[in-house]
Amino acid sequence: MATLRKLYVVTRPVHSEDSLGEEYMKIHRTHKSMCDHGKQYLTCDAKRVKNIGLSLLPIIGWMKIYRVKEWLLGDVVSGVSTGLVAIMQGLAFSLLASLPPSYGLYTAFFPMLIYFFMGTSRHISIGSFPVLSLMVGAIVLRIVPDNDMEPSVNITGLEGLTMEEKRVVVASSVTFLMGIFQLAMGVLQVGFVVVYLSDTLVSGFTTAAAVHILVSQLKFVLGLTVTSFNGPLAIIYTLINIFDQITSTNICDLVTSILIMLMVFIVKELNDKYKAKLPVPIPIEIIMTVIACAVSYGFDFENRFEVTVVGVMDKGYKTPFAPNVGVWKESAVEAFPIAIVGFAVAFSVAKVYSIKHDYTIDGNQELIAFGVSNIFGASFRSFAASTALSRTAVQESSGGKTQVAGLISAVMAMIVTLSLGFLLEPLPTSVLGALVIVNLKGMLMQVRETVYLWRRDKVELVVWVGTFLGAILLGLDLGLGLGLGVELLTVVFRTQFPRCSVLANMPGTDLYKDCKDYVSTYQQPKGVKIFRIPSPLFFANIDFFKDKLAQAVGFNALRVLRKRNKALRKNKKTMQDTDQTYTKEEITANALGRYTEDGGPRLWVDSDRVLPAFISIPKVDIHSLILDFSAVSFLDVSAMKGLKTTVKEFLRIDVDVYIVSCDAYIMEKLHSFMFFDEEIQTSMFYPTLHDAVLHAYETHKDDKGGVVSSTRI
Amino acid sequence: MATLRKLYVVTRPVHSEDSLGEEYMKIHRTHKSMCDHGKQYLTCDAKRVKNIGLSLLPIIGWMKIYRVKEWLLGDVVSGVSTGLVAIMQGLAFSLLASLPPSYGLYTAFFPMLIYFFMGTSRHISIGSFPVLSLMVGAIVLRIVPDNDMEPSVNITGLEGLTMEEKRVVVASSVTFLMGIFQLAMGVLQVGFVVVYLSDTLVSGFTTAAAVHILVSQLKFVLGLTVTSFNGPLAIIYTLINIFDQITSTNICDLVTSILIMLMVFIVKELNDKYKAKLPVPIPIEIIMTVIACAVSYGFDFENRFEVTVVGVMDKGYKTPFAPNVGVWKESAVEAFPIAIVGFAVAFSVAKVYSIKHDYTIDGNQELIAFGVSNIFGASFRSFAASTALSRTAVQESSGGKTQVAGLISAVMAMIVTLSLGFLLEPLPTSVLGALVIVNLKGMLMQVRETVYLWRRDKVELVVWVGTFLGAILLGLDLGLGLGLGVELLTVVFRTQFPRCSVLANMPGTDLYKDCKDYVSTYQQPKGVKIFRIPSPLFFANIDFFKDKLAQAVGFNALRVLRKRNKALRKNKKTMQDTDQTYTKEEITANALGRYTEDGGPRLWVDSDRVLPAFISIPKVDIHSLILDFSAVSFLDVSAMKGLKTTVKEFLRIDVDVYIVSCDAYIMEKLHSFMFFDEEIQTSMFYPTLHDAVLHAYETHKDDKGGVVSSTRI
Repeated sequence: MATLRKLYVVTRPVHSEDSLGEEYMKIHRTHKSMCDHGKQYLTCDAKRVKNIGLSLLPIIGWMKIYRVKEWLLGDVVSGVSTGLVAIMQGLAFSLLASLPPSYGLYTAFFPMLIYFFMGTSRHISIGSFPVLSLMVGAIVLRIVPDNDMEPSVNITGLEGLTMEEKRVVVASSVTFLMGIFQLAMGVLQVGFVVVYLSDTLVSGFTTAAAVHILVSQLKFVLGLTVTSFNGPLAIIYTLINIFDQITSTNICDLVTSILIMLMVFIVKELNDKYKAKLPVPIPIEIIMTVIACAVSYGFDFENRFEVTVVGVMDKGYKTPFAPNVGVWKESAVEAFPIAIVGFAVAFSVAKVYSIKHDYTIDGNQELIAFGVSNIFGASFRSFAASTALSRTAVQESSGGKTQVAGLISAVMAMIVTLSLGFLLEPLPTSVLGALVIVNLKGMLMQVRETVYLWRRDKVELVVWVGTFLGAILLGLDLGLGLGLGVELLTVVFRTQFPRCSVLANMPGTDLYKDCKDYVSTYQQPKGVKIFRIPSPLFFANIDFFKDKLAQAVGFNALRVLRKRNKALRKNKKTMQDTDQTYTKEEITANALGRYTEDGGPRLWVDSDRVLPAFISIPKVDIHSLILDFSAVSFLDVSAMKGLKTTVKEFLRIDVDVYIVSCDAYIMEKLHSFMFFDEEIQTSMFYPTLHDAVLHAYETHKDDKGGVVSSTRI
Repeated sequence: MATLRKLYVVTRPVHSEDSLGEEYMKIHRTHKSMCDHGKQYLTCDAKRVKNIGLSLLPIIGWMKIYRVKEWLLGDVVSGVSTGLVAIMQGLAFSLLASLPPSYGLYTAFFPMLIYFFMGTSRHISIGSFPVLSLMVGAIVLRIVPDNDMEPSVNITGLEGLTMEEKRVVVASSVTFLMGIFQLAMGVLQVGFVVVYLSDTLVSGFTTAAAVHILVSQLKFVLGLTVTSFNGPLAIIYTLINIFDQITSTNICDLVTSILIMLMVFIVKELNDKYKAKLPVPIPIEIIMTVIACAVSYGFDFENRFEVTVVGVMDKGYKTPFAPNVGVWKESAVEAFPIAIVGFAVAFSVAKVYSIKHDYTIDGNQELIAFGVSNIFGASFRSFAASTALSRTAVQESSGGKTQVAGLISAVMAMIVTLSLGFLLEPLPTSVLGALVIVNLKGMLMQVRETVYLWRRDKVELVVWVGTFLGAILLGLDLGLGLGLGVELLTVVFRTQFPRCSVLANMPGTDLYKDCKDYVSTYQQPKGVKIFRIPSPLFFANIDFFKDKLAQAVGFNALRVLRKRNKALRKNKKTMQDTDQTYTKEEITANALGRYTEDGGPRLWVDSDRVLPAFISIPKVDIHSLILDFSAVSFLDVSAMKGLKTTVKEFLRIDVDVYIVSCDAYIMEKLHSFMFFDEEIQTSMFYPTLHDAVLHAYETHKDDKGGVVSSTRI
């Protein structure tokens, strides 16, 4: 694509924004007021109702196009594979939530029933997600700690329950609340908030979560009883506690875990390597679980080696129950980040597959679907549901086309709950712990992101490291908050110290570039300074901008104005005795700093002529200041005030100010800010730098004997 | 300033950024690495040491130019007036800090001794500031509550002290810590952080603080004993507590307070009104205090009406003491906002006067000065010092030229502490409370700001109201944090939903404007789409930008690419039987989505020709997409990834992409992000829209039979 170097020829009048608006008939666009938006939002007609109904039940959309012959087989195969994984993960992740394993199976079942009807993603597998389980677990452990002798929190409605029952009530209530938050956000259409969780932030956060998960599973792998800690630095205390009792490690648990981790790790690597050749990946986790169950049962691990096993599973389902409001009061602040994280993860996974398979998903409808799923699930004692990337990958790669696969996997979980649960009873919990740990590889490997970011953008590295360390040391919820704060600060920071530059003409063209960037630019003849503002202007950088501008022009306009006024006052006295030619009017106009439209008294011309030697006036060697506004994408009130002051200071010392390439939207803003008055007028706005420069030369060509030399055009 | 409408004539080759760089010899600028900056920062030579010494002791600068004849009288008069105000305010604000009144006098004395040498502002009056006093008071009340029976916090080193002594230790320790924070920030040169406290935020915050101060003084004015509350909603509980016992109001206190408030209010209004005519404002507060003292003493208010009076004042100074580290642990999180607020207020006041009197102040040196002042003051049991706007106004308006005035006012406070304190002993505390309340008028009137903001910028109104409500309901420190969060979010929010627009040529010119803004724009002939991105691109808006772009061009590039590839694969089979002219190579190139540089197979030309009817391919009616990057002031990694994907999608469906007016700094960023590869090359960058449009027409004039019609130039 070599440049063809054709000639660029333009002949047209010099335009200001005003003249352009007249000639090309600028439209005064009216924007909808908040009231109009409100009205539109609340309008109700039959078509809209139908659309809302359809969007609330996306199943209607995809069921109509369901191709039974082509899709059903895939969905069934995928559903069975996913179901097996979902059962395994359900058992394992319930340990993260500090709940009995059977509740993991509930989580694999109930939420899916709702999502099947309301979800817009056809590929994600609804159920437990390790990070969420851990976050729920943190609340559970805080409200119902292991050492139940001295309960840290008194909540009515929990009296007389066993520790396990209390924990189930807490987990379900938190999940219910999380569902309410998600539903509320969906109804209020604020699903866009997840954009604040940038990839970098999520990567740092999930890596920290993986570390937390790893630490939380150590006690199962080592067969220890570890006190639960809460709040900042809990992870450090937990590690200290583990190392304190490392000598009491259960060797049987440790050996089983290491064996399982090794096997699963190796087979998973092989699966990856021979992905193309294998028809389906080897379901190593399921094989190992079956073996572990059999061996544990055969050798009676539970009694012979004192290994903790899954134990009696609740058979069947329990009646639904209402959430505990006392728990809500205790956990409201923590339930909100859980709701956000749960949705953000599910949505980002869903987006990947929706792009891959070319269908649309709707963030707000997803929020509603997850909200209702969690509320429904919580009523049946399941805990926080979202999606797990690994499980979704199985569902999609094994041929799942729609949520029919999800439904079948839920039915698998139901079968285990209702009748096959007893088979899992001899399974050591260390096996579940080992399976959780070995699956953390992907999340932990995100640490490599730091290298990538170090090379590319150190600011984002700060966000990653800040979120990671925050989430590790302060806990997941506070860490997320901290990461979010750091991330928002970086956005402000990127615009806070803009690289302002002085532009110069490229000889023979109408182009203007930073004079530091090119060897052969044409420095503007004395009199015109072109200053580029390369960022939005707002409270955090307006002072910085003013300083840079003063540096660029070489003087402080306010100081010059003051000194001139002072000099004029002194001069006035002197003049009364001499034959100076200044009229009183001229002096008043200048002393008041009033700018006269007809180009009245111009001190910069005369400054070396009229005043007695004892009065020193700073010299101003420019007559025009051109501000390039092309990159000013927004302005706030502080910036507008600062800009107004600055422009007035220049106008009062008789420097013409031109504002160039100002966005139409910013112009509107300036009008609504009441930026314009008798001094500052819309006639200072020009469409291009060259227009403004030509106009400035033309206006001032007489001042300096017509040295316009308009850039050799 | 009518536009002169001279002709604008340009004849030059069409330039791409590359050709421009060659012809005008672009400089490859190298930027200092972090390492270089570090080196430079750590370089040490004699001159630098001298400069650092001078900047640490600004007194050397202004003492050299001190004009004894002109300035000394003013400084002395101002010092005496300020001293009287400082004594009054010291007594009154110590009530806000829940400390005995004599400590307010210490605060008016010790910090000034240091600031005199180290401060860069010549006009601010150092000493207590109501908002800071209240913030210190909140910590004092939390650690040492009124009801000392059950201390909420156990701190070693406080045992065996009376409640008052404990409070003094807590207040001094917090002040010491605050000083350390300020000093550290000064040394680390991070004084710029105060720019995040925008005017709007500070206005909302101080208004809320005024409400808190008002409520905290009610108990003195009504003569009640009110339990102290802490944490969120404390203000509500306090009000409830006050109304519960409103019937026990001490009538004598109430009447005295109302009388004093009325008198002071009226005289202050008169002072304002006749500002020009009065030589000095009437010192009504001092007059009222003297009268109140005399009346209280004469009628023995203390015993006769059970009025709480100032009581025995500590005479003289105490030996310095080390701060209590236990208190630091308890209050570290709260001391930080105090340090920030204290500095931010002092700096903003100092800035106003430095501009008025035309000298420079240095933010980092101010931080150091305040840090050392507070550390020094805290060692002598004074509490958090900053400046009060009202006192500084007195110091400046009564003729103070330098900090000599401040020193004299400190000496006044010393005299009262050392010998005249007994005169203040009969003063009722309700009088001090009344004086505090009547001085809140200015701060409370900032509520009017809401009307101003409502008319101009609703986003900033949200910041104001958020900070105000947050600070009222959650307490000052949490409220400040909340306000800061909201403020940062608004910056992100302003760039999050940019108003993207499609530009069109203004006939007969090289100008391009939003086609919705002008009646007579020239819609681009089929084939070229010009899309303007009016904001920075970053994680929060990159998806939004992609959606808008897809809307603007009318198709989804990825979907088109997929359908084409699918169609091609189908077509391949068909072709083998027919006489289609596609070569295998062409198909492969397209099927892989590979873009061939020599303008290889172009499907958009052929899409309606070669393919059998049963294969539908979306039509793409543009051959060039021009992205106007002039307002993209920064890009982050997420945005770069998104942009890269988007550009590739377009290139692969054979749409040329041009990026126009890209900042040199963004170009550098793109290089360091590894944005460029064999598909995306620097040759797609053009300096102006017109260059890119001309180039696009030139390149594609053969495709459509040379319909270039290059905008009638």
